[in-house]
Amino acid sequence: MHQVLIVSRQHRTYRDLLAKAALPDLSITDDPQQATIILADPPRIASQLGDYPQLKWLQSTFAGVDALTKPALRRDYCLTNVRGYFGQLISEYVLGFLIDRFRHISHYQQLHHQQQWQPQPYRSLADLKMVILGTGSIGAHLAQACQALGLDVIGVNRSGHAASPAFNRNYSYNQLSDAFSEADIIVSTLPATDNTNDILNTDSLSYCQGALLFNVGRGNAICEHGLLTAINNGAIAHAYLDVFKQEPLPPAHPFWGHSQITITPHIAAESFPDQVMTIFTKNYHQYRQQLPLEYQVDFDQGY
Amino acid sequence: MHQVLIVSRQHRTYRDLLAKAALPDLSITDDPQQATIILADPPRIASQLGDYPQLKWLQSTFAGVDALTKPALRRDYCLTNVRGYFGQLISEYVLGFLIDRFRHISHYQQLHHQQQWQPQPYRSLADLKMVILGTGSIGAHLAQACQALGLDVIGVNRSGHAASPAFNRNYSYNQLSDAFSEADIIVSTLPATDNTNDILNTDSLSYCQGALLFNVGRGNAICEHGLLTAINNGAIAHAYLDVFKQEPLPPAHPFWGHSQITITPHIAAESFPDQVMTIFTKNYHQYRQQLPLEYQVDFDQGY
Repeated sequence: MHQVLIVSRQHRTYRDLLAKAALPDLSITDDPQQATIILADPPRIASQLGDYPQLKWLQSTFAGVDALTKPALRRDYCLTNVRGYFGQLISEYVLGFLIDRFRHISHYQQLHHQQQWQPQPYRSLADLKMVILGTGSIGAHLAQACQALGLDVIGVNRSGHAASPAFNRNYSYNQLSDAFSEADIIVSTLPATDNTNDILNTDSLSYCQGALLFNVGRGNAICEHGLLTAINNGAIAHAYLDVFKQEPLPPAHPFWGHSQITITPHIAAESFPDQVMTIFTKNYHQYRQQLPLEYQVDFDQGY
Repeated sequence: MHQVLIVSRQHRTYRDLLAKAALPDLSITDDPQQATIILADPPRIASQLGDYPQLKWLQSTFAGVDALTKPALRRDYCLTNVRGYFGQLISEYVLGFLIDRFRHISHYQQLHHQQQWQPQPYRSLADLKMVILGTGSIGAHLAQACQALGLDVIGVNRSGHAASPAFNRNYSYNQLSDAFSEADIIVSTLPATDNTNDILNTDSLSYCQGALLFNVGRGNAICEHGLLTAINNGAIAHAYLDVFKQEPLPPAHPFWGHSQITITPHIAAESFPDQVMTIFTKNYHQYRQQLPLEYQVDFDQGY
């Protein structure tokens, strides 16, 4: 018999879904001493990881597991995360704000309320150059959706080699200045690791020429002071930020009042419990048969 | 020597582009008696078609040529229109409003201005069923862009047979009730012809079950009374209308004040002069060599 314990903001939903799934040889427990499996939101479980002496496998309900890959935390268990669903949601978010900007979607809704028939000049998104930092499943899905909408998509990753045919060209991180100097749009899908801290800073952003910047990865990637400098000197025309070093973003933060920054409350991609359960179920069957689990996280790489 | 005359809201832009192109054996004229070629916005030229005794070829600056295909008008010349560019723009328009609705793009911008960190529940666009009326170049491009964003796309055309692999299924017009009964989203890309008048009416819309309706084709396709009935009884949840029987939409029109209708001023797809000139130039070389022109309109079909 295996025992699973749930630590999640959506505890009740996961409990219901697990009960309904009725997986063989699996029972739900509330006793940390008994739990061999944990289904958890990383920020909620991180501080209490030491309380589970029998822990063998932890299925994260999030894609981002940086709360669990910090060097001080235990690594004597198998950590798996959620993949494959966020690319769709991130693509919707990025394209939603881009189309709104270029095609005046919100503005036309205001004009409608004012009963005004006023065509606005516009340009198409076609042929805009989008540089995507991170070419994993999220970056590759975004690239493919944006390519279908006519954008010219450039990938940046460690190797500088193509990760998906949706990337028309590829750069490595030490060619960031080349990538940024031709970018109309930059999207960071990077996970939080030691290598991504403040990767978007005064220096790297100085190569941009009026680019739009999206951060849909993790807040650690942006040096906040560097971003404000880049906006002030015109290197960045507008920043769409969904993730921050501190969340919720504090009320006194200078980003709130800035006309060239749009803040969203970490909603670009959300874990939907039924999707997490699909992954958990598949992985549980593997676990039970002592086969390798899908979407295992490498603690050293941090993703 | 061939003589081209320009009749367009953007007369000066086209004159400059034609002068710059310096096409062989072609001069620009303002004399209707001399013109063998006309480059024109259809609504501007329609009433004066009789003034051009030498007319051989008219290149429309629009995709929609219904102003020129009315039975009373002359048909003793070759009429070509603009194709291949509008699919991109229509895709941006439809996806822009769809993503705005499902992912709260405008709403988050308002929340930002109010300095509010308030995540909203949402669902993805993935797997929504979109029924596209008209499977020509615009419909097929839209289908492909929406398929890349995870939608399930169904085409409706005369034959009921697949026009592009981006359509997962196809219906004919006499199966409209089947198509509408499963639609989450309906998009009309239909041209104005005798066959498309009021095709979206009280009867056909009664098969919808809370669908979103986009009209990016021509205003003639919608029976306005029928649409209001369909909204009132819940068959249509919201209508996004870019084209109307009368444009601009009159100030007293009931659509203006309706909370479930969004009006845009015929901007879903616009002819950009440089794109029109690309087609004109290619066609002019064909014309000069007495070869068949691209994008010829069939006056009887109306497109």
